[in-house]
Amino acid sequence: MIVLTYCIETPGNIEALAAKIASDQSTGTFVALAGETEELKARVAARVLAIRHLPDADRPSVPETGPEARNGPVKRADVDIAFPLDAIGTDLSALMTIAIGGTFSIKGLSGIRVVDMRLPEEYRGAHPGPQFGVTGSRRLTAVADRPIIGTIVKPALGLRPPETAAMVQELIAAGVDFIKDDEKLMSPAYSPLSERVRAIMPLILDHEQKTGKKVMYAFGISHADPDEMMRNHDLVANAGGNCAVVNINSIGFGGMAYLRKRSSLVLHAHRNGWDILTRHPGLGMDFKVWQQFWRLLGVDQFQINGIASKYWEPDWSFVESFKAVTTPIFSPADCALPVAGSGQWGGQAPETFRRTGRTVDLLYLCGGGIVSHPDGPGAGVRAVQQAWQAAVQDIPLADYALSHVELARSIEKFGGGEAA
Amino acid sequence: MIVLTYCIETPGNIEALAAKIASDQSTGTFVALAGETEELKARVAARVLAIRHLPDADRPSVPETGPEARNGPVKRADVDIAFPLDAIGTDLSALMTIAIGGTFSIKGLSGIRVVDMRLPEEYRGAHPGPQFGVTGSRRLTAVADRPIIGTIVKPALGLRPPETAAMVQELIAAGVDFIKDDEKLMSPAYSPLSERVRAIMPLILDHEQKTGKKVMYAFGISHADPDEMMRNHDLVANAGGNCAVVNINSIGFGGMAYLRKRSSLVLHAHRNGWDILTRHPGLGMDFKVWQQFWRLLGVDQFQINGIASKYWEPDWSFVESFKAVTTPIFSPADCALPVAGSGQWGGQAPETFRRTGRTVDLLYLCGGGIVSHPDGPGAGVRAVQQAWQAAVQDIPLADYALSHVELARSIEKFGGGEAA
Repeated sequence: MIVLTYCIETPGNIEALAAKIASDQSTGTFVALAGETEELKARVAARVLAIRHLPDADRPSVPETGPEARNGPVKRADVDIAFPLDAIGTDLSALMTIAIGGTFSIKGLSGIRVVDMRLPEEYRGAHPGPQFGVTGSRRLTAVADRPIIGTIVKPALGLRPPETAAMVQELIAAGVDFIKDDEKLMSPAYSPLSERVRAIMPLILDHEQKTGKKVMYAFGISHADPDEMMRNHDLVANAGGNCAVVNINSIGFGGMAYLRKRSSLVLHAHRNGWDILTRHPGLGMDFKVWQQFWRLLGVDQFQINGIASKYWEPDWSFVESFKAVTTPIFSPADCALPVAGSGQWGGQAPETFRRTGRTVDLLYLCGGGIVSHPDGPGAGVRAVQQAWQAAVQDIPLADYALSHVELARSIEKFGGGEAA
Repeated sequence: MIVLTYCIETPGNIEALAAKIASDQSTGTFVALAGETEELKARVAARVLAIRHLPDADRPSVPETGPEARNGPVKRADVDIAFPLDAIGTDLSALMTIAIGGTFSIKGLSGIRVVDMRLPEEYRGAHPGPQFGVTGSRRLTAVADRPIIGTIVKPALGLRPPETAAMVQELIAAGVDFIKDDEKLMSPAYSPLSERVRAIMPLILDHEQKTGKKVMYAFGISHADPDEMMRNHDLVANAGGNCAVVNINSIGFGGMAYLRKRSSLVLHAHRNGWDILTRHPGLGMDFKVWQQFWRLLGVDQFQINGIASKYWEPDWSFVESFKAVTTPIFSPADCALPVAGSGQWGGQAPETFRRTGRTVDLLYLCGGGIVSHPDGPGAGVRAVQQAWQAAVQDIPLADYALSHVELARSIEKFGGGEAA
């Protein structure tokens, strides 16, 4: 049995709407059908398990328009609906189509948000899941006992491969564990992936030769065409790379499934575009639901913003996202490594640590917070490491900065809110 | 140059927000960067072409929450932003990521809707587009000079292959041109696609042998895994089938691109899940924008609801969708066959005809409107054909019904609003 929880909203009757969702999404349509027998319904019909009424909302999430619009208060409830496994099976496109997609089109609701999804035992092992996840990311970066510290090559667009390589050289020397292409950079004419790989990978490998430390570089391999994406994957893998950024919404389930089956790279997911499915609190989906699909499909590292990010997302939502990707669906191996990014510089380390269960199992991604450090990126990396040392020991950053100059300089520069 | 038009909304400054979108989605981030040179910006920076202010909205599309929420009036404008082709290239996942996906995450906007997208000449020929489209659909169904009349096997879920086949036999005998699996039916354990194909295709081929008329049957082949989907495709093709339903949102760009390159079937797109991207008028995307991606990827037939559908979508929105899929992006060959469905029974034929440019180039899909006809599906099909004859000749349905008994009986049953 697959159980979905929908937060529904209607100017009409909650019980009737819940029943309509269960019927429309399985055996029913809007007229009685001869073939909709009791035996058939017993096998595949969805049914309403529970309705938990919520306080009315002052106005509908989707405004009524036209001359008769009222926009008055609407009723709300959380509704649990169970789908027999037989009705859907374990294919994720069937799950998305039946249990989620169709519900958004139903007439008579003024808002619907999918807030939970509980998959049955039959899904265990039915999907590849992460190939590397937390353990693999730690093994490949050889970072233990602290967050993996990463950064992003900026400007996002426009650098030619030699310019990117020069910046990468500086970042490698600075001591970062992880570097990535901005998610907007894939394989444009001014920076074809093949040339970017050729310019960057020798620097990574040379540094590995000299120091034993292999920086994980995530190349942007996304392409709408899975064949092209695999060619991109192979360019990276054949050059000795071990990671790729994938824009999961822009390649879709098909792109991700195809890639995962053939991939030897750590798959670092950027969820670009996701916001439109969650930004309005009465519509769309909670991240808790949506991320399950992508973890089952094979995401190893999941970008989820961070404390005081530069985007719209509030801190509590980041904290919930962190909890979501680190909560097993079936086993710890299906968890993704959480990637905290956007506007991070180390200043958010204590709060990140405190609010995410005091773990250091994350990739902490700082752009400007590292490269704009007043004493250069090397000092920037050390400052972020120091911030995490302080966080883990519950020492206030200002105190720790008394004996750690890079952190002190970092606080001077970014402490006023000018983060990265 | 790729030009997007966004309808943006903010409690702040429209000009500043427009500039921020252009910057964030190309070369900029929230701090000045050494590498963001004038030369680089000239090559790849997006820029604001025009701002057309709109009347204020009474309240933000995304409600402000928390103790300081105001939810007062917000400013609105349509903003044209141009992206140099170099910044994006012709890959559709790059286009989605850069020009659309990222905009939804920007702080400081209370609403954003992508309302237009104009692609440059460089996109001409860069994508496969429809393999069959309008012409191919007409050729394969051998229907000229009137809409292709189709129906859907119901109940959506739960019928076993022999039960489905019995219903299909009746629908074939009734004279429909097209039959489809409900979009929710793919390959569940009680109706594996292989068995459904084996039960149905002999009926189609037998009827073709006897009458020369090959009914187009669209089998649900969607699967999150493109390899599985291709196996499904091959089952249909090898059995002599010529069409497939694909749930485009649930397979994503990757699934669609992979399939189109290898497909010999007419690809009938169901847009299940789309509604969440468009239902709130201040958020998401116009269909006009979104459908361009899928047509370039290769959709042949595009479901777009219909007049007085059973879903939330208002009639004007269906009319605009119809116009969208029938307006060439680069040439008439890239148009999809519009599929009007949901609650259709023939009664909507006159208004559909009048409001869509008086064309009969469409697939008119009636479920209950055919199978629930009081004199059976055969009479149902004839009633729908008669309704279209009347529509094309501008004869009121009630007048035409005086000499066409199936239409008359259809009006008796469905004319009160009980459609299909």
